[in-house]
Amino acid sequence: MDDAPTLPHVVILGGGFGGLTAARGLAGASVRITLVDRRNHHLFQPLLYQVATAGLSAPSIAAPLRQILRRQDNLTVLLDEALDVDLQERRVRFAHETLDYDFLVVATGATHAYFGHDAWARWAPGLKTLDDAFAIRRRVLLAFERAERENDPAERRAWLNFVVVGGGPTGVELAGTLAEIARHTLPREFRRSNPHSARVVLVEAGPRLLAAFDPVLSAKAQRQLERLGVEVRTGTAVTAIDGAGVCLGEAPLPAYTVLWAAGVAASPLGRQLDTPLDRAGRVRVAADLSLPAHPEVFVIGDLACVERADGSLVPGVAPAAKQMGKHVAGRIRARVDADSTPAPFHYRDQGALATIGRMAAVAQFGRLRLSGPPAWWVWLVAHIYFLIGFRNRLVVLLDWAWAYWTYERSARIVTGADADDIPTADERPADSP
Amino acid sequence: MDDAPTLPHVVILGGGFGGLTAARGLAGASVRITLVDRRNHHLFQPLLYQVATAGLSAPSIAAPLRQILRRQDNLTVLLDEALDVDLQERRVRFAHETLDYDFLVVATGATHAYFGHDAWARWAPGLKTLDDAFAIRRRVLLAFERAERENDPAERRAWLNFVVVGGGPTGVELAGTLAEIARHTLPREFRRSNPHSARVVLVEAGPRLLAAFDPVLSAKAQRQLERLGVEVRTGTAVTAIDGAGVCLGEAPLPAYTVLWAAGVAASPLGRQLDTPLDRAGRVRVAADLSLPAHPEVFVIGDLACVERADGSLVPGVAPAAKQMGKHVAGRIRARVDADSTPAPFHYRDQGALATIGRMAAVAQFGRLRLSGPPAWWVWLVAHIYFLIGFRNRLVVLLDWAWAYWTYERSARIVTGADADDIPTADERPADSP
Repeated sequence: MDDAPTLPHVVILGGGFGGLTAARGLAGASVRITLVDRRNHHLFQPLLYQVATAGLSAPSIAAPLRQILRRQDNLTVLLDEALDVDLQERRVRFAHETLDYDFLVVATGATHAYFGHDAWARWAPGLKTLDDAFAIRRRVLLAFERAERENDPAERRAWLNFVVVGGGPTGVELAGTLAEIARHTLPREFRRSNPHSARVVLVEAGPRLLAAFDPVLSAKAQRQLERLGVEVRTGTAVTAIDGAGVCLGEAPLPAYTVLWAAGVAASPLGRQLDTPLDRAGRVRVAADLSLPAHPEVFVIGDLACVERADGSLVPGVAPAAKQMGKHVAGRIRARVDADSTPAPFHYRDQGALATIGRMAAVAQFGRLRLSGPPAWWVWLVAHIYFLIGFRNRLVVLLDWAWAYWTYERSARIVTGADADDIPTADERPADSP
Repeated sequence: MDDAPTLPHVVILGGGFGGLTAARGLAGASVRITLVDRRNHHLFQPLLYQVATAGLSAPSIAAPLRQILRRQDNLTVLLDEALDVDLQERRVRFAHETLDYDFLVVATGATHAYFGHDAWARWAPGLKTLDDAFAIRRRVLLAFERAERENDPAERRAWLNFVVVGGGPTGVELAGTLAEIARHTLPREFRRSNPHSARVVLVEAGPRLLAAFDPVLSAKAQRQLERLGVEVRTGTAVTAIDGAGVCLGEAPLPAYTVLWAAGVAASPLGRQLDTPLDRAGRVRVAADLSLPAHPEVFVIGDLACVERADGSLVPGVAPAAKQMGKHVAGRIRARVDADSTPAPFHYRDQGALATIGRMAAVAQFGRLRLSGPPAWWVWLVAHIYFLIGFRNRLVVLLDWAWAYWTYERSARIVTGADADDIPTADERPADSP
């Protein structure tokens, strides 16, 4: 490794789908790679809602970045957090060290956003990390426990009202699963309260669910959700969220469990790249995903704002991030070989899938439209196929088969009992003594 | 259920092995049962060290109490914490309600104890709950990450020194597994530091490991640990633990990861039962496990101090707690039927097992002594057999088979990144800037 320092140094920020694919795409290339992430694991985010709803354990959908990449000799994994980027000096400062780069790939993704209502975060957690999923799991499971312990009917009602804000795929998945838990998993297990009487309300400000899908599928998704017992409120704005519940327009709805699936904002690192951002904070990259003024810096994944030929934007989904990672790895290989032929990124739409519940899903591929059991089977096979790690696939399949036959959920454990991130009944203004 | 209030009310405090077995033993009896636990799950504690060392996910060894007991119609599960017991009024006050009882079963177990050195808890976490296991997993995995990031050789050394205090089964299991992780799981994955150079030191104040076992097996366990790379220090007292490491007698050992497996103290609820306690805080019960002055109150499991005919004490292990739970269920059934024939509890020793690493374990059953692969196979079959839930058994077997062939550990994820319960390098007195 004595000649290593003379090789160009590629620094990749973020080990999500984009960063991981870029790193793998550089296997065997004449570069030194340092992949830096704040967390030690790659997360299979499409199944994160199942961790939040106690269907899967966290290790089933997360794998250590070091383990995934251990055979790639030209790569070092570091656990650290990027603080700022100096484009002139080609240097990234992290919490614990500083790295100089020849090529930089920024793949730090997005987090959830409350559109200026940051106070809502306390009452309506979002879902981006495993810790978010544990917080939601804890709230959902404890809500049923509180209802069981509660004697006041209005209080019990508020503990059994669940509101999901946002009718995109995550909101649809969360609402459908909550309804299944209330109707199928829990009813036999409580003696004083009746989980079956829980209300699950899915609120969407726009005119229909799953706006990225064909309107026909949006309508089918809504019907499937309603059949599961979810109340769908489209065209309804949430105007307030606090300890008592939500306001839907003018109408207050008492609910002690509110989940946020409404908005994402790009990673704040984008602001340091001296490049215009779009309204969601994403970086407007050049056609090859580099910064217009800094061809050695690439932005990929949910942090990149990429326009397609028809003027639409490349969506913030896993397949897009992977395609961008692969593209950038190719660009870096070409540039190391002194090949600077322009090569714009082309997004290949692989279709869209959203699951709703058992045997309930919607899918579109090109002109093909699926819903119900066929869409659900496509969803299942695709997610098992793309899930990282052979062991994880087996465990997840086993969990799903088990859950399908028994309606049990395998990860129904509440931990973190001393954590204060869950507002208790005592903190809620509407609470009885 | 109109006649339900007229049935005798049995309140069981704690859903561990003792409380759960007592509850099941009263299935179909003419009583109303309320089982109260602070947590929503029963925990299979014998495998907790595997969650702490990233070998198993938490849901693999924990199941919701409600789910386990859902078919038992005479039973209600409550999530609450017992605050005090009023023996005269036959009433238990919980954090959120108060219950009157006709029979009380106290099965609240034990926690780890630092023998008056409570300040050590910050630096040397113990292992009793899932949250403890997550805290240990986090520290162990992050120690290797810090070593990778560290340039100062002395600091790196301190991050790669692991000290386990206490040579009982938990200490032996933790030390053996840590050595396997350092030598087999991680070495290929780090570029700057060498996990293989990690030192794992197991410290025991007494003259030998596994004091409850035959001395021949203690010696075999020590040899098997040493073969795995563990440094065993028997007859060595830990005199100090702080942010810099431990003192073994007079000798300081710099170590940033110290795990506590040395002592347990009975649940503080025992102090409220107006009955003499032994030195470890356990309640000295009558021959039938009731309180001498209150035959309607029973104490079982790790909280009970039960003398055997030969003067030795019943050990604080799962089989003992289960036998006590079963015995008490029988006593309550008899008393409800107005049968007050004395029936003393007899402990049936089912042998002892401790695992050390792959194909390394010790076991004794009556006069039979096993070590190495035969003991390991007995350990494996026994633990799979007793593990609660069919699904869990399959998942655990799959995880173990996978780990056996690949040396990978399936739950190597660090979560809780914002939690401040892990002392960071910056807080450590010995830390370089």
